[in-house]
Amino acid sequence: MNLLKVDDLAEALAKLTVRAACVQPPVEEAGLEQCLGRTLAADIYAEENIPAFARAVMDGYAVRAADVQGAGESIPAFLSVTGEVRMGEEAGFAIGAGECAYVPTGAMLPEGADAVVMEEYCEKTSPGKIAAYKSEAPGSNVAAAGEDMKKGELVLRRGRRLKPQDLGLLAALGRAQVSVYRPYRVFIISTGDELAGPEEEASGGRIRDVNTYGLIGKAAAAGFVISGRQRVKDVEELLAQAVEEGKQKADIVVISGGSSKGRRDVTAAVIEQAASSGVFTHGIAVKPGKPTILGVDEPSATVLAGLPGHPVAALMLFELIVGGLWRAQTGQEPRRGIRARLSINLPATPGRQTFQLVKLRADGGEVNIAEPVLGKSGMIYTMSRADGYIVIDKNREGLKQGEAVEVFLF
Amino acid sequence: MNLLKVDDLAEALAKLTVRAACVQPPVEEAGLEQCLGRTLAADIYAEENIPAFARAVMDGYAVRAADVQGAGESIPAFLSVTGEVRMGEEAGFAIGAGECAYVPTGAMLPEGADAVVMEEYCEKTSPGKIAAYKSEAPGSNVAAAGEDMKKGELVLRRGRRLKPQDLGLLAALGRAQVSVYRPYRVFIISTGDELAGPEEEASGGRIRDVNTYGLIGKAAAAGFVISGRQRVKDVEELLAQAVEEGKQKADIVVISGGSSKGRRDVTAAVIEQAASSGVFTHGIAVKPGKPTILGVDEPSATVLAGLPGHPVAALMLFELIVGGLWRAQTGQEPRRGIRARLSINLPATPGRQTFQLVKLRADGGEVNIAEPVLGKSGMIYTMSRADGYIVIDKNREGLKQGEAVEVFLF
Repeated sequence: MNLLKVDDLAEALAKLTVRAACVQPPVEEAGLEQCLGRTLAADIYAEENIPAFARAVMDGYAVRAADVQGAGESIPAFLSVTGEVRMGEEAGFAIGAGECAYVPTGAMLPEGADAVVMEEYCEKTSPGKIAAYKSEAPGSNVAAAGEDMKKGELVLRRGRRLKPQDLGLLAALGRAQVSVYRPYRVFIISTGDELAGPEEEASGGRIRDVNTYGLIGKAAAAGFVISGRQRVKDVEELLAQAVEEGKQKADIVVISGGSSKGRRDVTAAVIEQAASSGVFTHGIAVKPGKPTILGVDEPSATVLAGLPGHPVAALMLFELIVGGLWRAQTGQEPRRGIRARLSINLPATPGRQTFQLVKLRADGGEVNIAEPVLGKSGMIYTMSRADGYIVIDKNREGLKQGEAVEVFLF
Repeated sequence: MNLLKVDDLAEALAKLTVRAACVQPPVEEAGLEQCLGRTLAADIYAEENIPAFARAVMDGYAVRAADVQGAGESIPAFLSVTGEVRMGEEAGFAIGAGECAYVPTGAMLPEGADAVVMEEYCEKTSPGKIAAYKSEAPGSNVAAAGEDMKKGELVLRRGRRLKPQDLGLLAALGRAQVSVYRPYRVFIISTGDELAGPEEEASGGRIRDVNTYGLIGKAAAAGFVISGRQRVKDVEELLAQAVEEGKQKADIVVISGGSSKGRRDVTAAVIEQAASSGVFTHGIAVKPGKPTILGVDEPSATVLAGLPGHPVAALMLFELIVGGLWRAQTGQEPRRGIRARLSINLPATPGRQTFQLVKLRADGGEVNIAEPVLGKSGMIYTMSRADGYIVIDKNREGLKQGEAVEVFLF
């Protein structure tokens, strides 16, 4: 009986992104040690060459490659040792033709040198003299200035979620502080007379509140902060009060209720009242997750999202909608999946974009097999067994066994 | 000149796992909300059927499927409405032949009912009577008792790193507390006269300390706790003092120094002194990462790991050794990678297991292409550009373009 238009996912996200400018996350400076998993708010350029100078990558003698050309096991090149470079200090001297200098791994090459002959290929023949038993090309056993990163090079983009190695990279560039986006503060409301917490008895028609904990996990995994949560009975005033608290404490208020029409109506009425925009998305043409509604309250700068009640649908839609808004607001590139081959024929619902849980397994060769994990969207265990999901276009009636698919990993 | 035997990686890990029983992580109870990313210390079985009772997954009328068999748009089945089940309550009545009851999504089915006809296919014909215009098979629009999880079923294994959906699953099972392993406490030491912090000037032969921050990231990403860190000069006594502090504060002390022989000797001497086991692994036949040494101090219950100086090698070996010990001690299954096709011929070093950084890209079909990210192991940017790594057997001289590979994602 719902005469209101249902949006495509892209349409819903586009509307949300336009209306939710008020929750654009501010930029803050964070110490490098606190930056794992944070999202960069600005492109990072190398402001200097890394390494800043040519360094030895092996213990040995810095030489002019021309001087050891043709040297070998039976025909050494004889060189004069001009000096030794100490770790962490400037070489402070140059080498000329027929000269060399000892360099430990990591030390600066003296001017004039363009290669390193490893220590094990050299022999001291007399004080201040060595024989080098190996020919080296220019650049051999050397990290050239700028070989890791070149001055001016764009090395990490705005929107990058920082990985461990990125912290190393930022340290290499001398960035003790980094501009990152302040994470969304998320307030989680689960509605339902029947809901019991995990610590409560669930009997006589009651069921346990799965969504609160799944959503806490999803929000935390995305790097967001949980600024509060409430489990409320199916009473419009109680839900409205919980939403008011959420508006004060959070950027994003998610309400997951049962999927019965009565409850959807209550959630819609509360969001209609609480959001200055009213409800602007009255359903999304996705499966699972159709009964998803969206509003934005500008005075309090809050997104109000009514998520479906079924756990798999609620968690998927959190990822698609709240995650999608975050990716849009922080300038992230679209997610890339893993290519795979579908193991079975898979029907879909035309007119709705289908998100199908899958497990990945190897076929023994170069191909990953995506095996659908089937089950109703109320079945949380399907999601724990899955490695990710595939997306089926709304114009397809299904996918065929053996078709190529893209798997988005959890 | 190193006459000491170099271990294979598997050998090094096996020795470490035997000797490091003293750092076996203890089990602790954690509240469900704090469990994301924690590692389960016990198998989780469903102690009840989930759902505990048959539930409607659509708003509609609970029926006996036999009563609507053959019903359709032009031939409705006429049924008496016996009652309505309220959400979160026991049905409290049964339906007999020719009877039905209204059920909102999520409500318990009354005894006798085995299917739900969606509301939109039903019409009220007179008080207490409906016409159902659709035939439904038994189980249709119903989540059967135990359909999500069956009582007694093993649903999550010890060693599982908990994902968002797992928190939902545990909530569904009524687990407000979960047995998880206490994370390793990791103490990070970087050695080198030449090292500058990211906040310091790096000039005149000095370079920035990359490993401390990369390792902080790696440890945090693995769920470990950083219990301290020190950057020390190349003085044996200073390193020994730092290791002593680490032994008091941590389960795992990692020392990454330069890769020069002099510095490796100092690290080896300090670990030899500080570890009751002495150094039992004097190098590992991997590339990068050969100069990795291991010891265990039983009195203080600490693993002492001398990691390579080159950043990529240090981070890889942290993952392989410290991560590998964690996986062994917490009963994790071996990591699974993503299958892919290698884009180029790739030489390797026979006698050493090679860990090669790769990027993944789609070929437009079902195959992922693994493109090696080449560069010396001092080049941290190679690791930021990579999506993961592949492993080349020590007996291979390389891999061929087009070969199937397994990519372990970062």
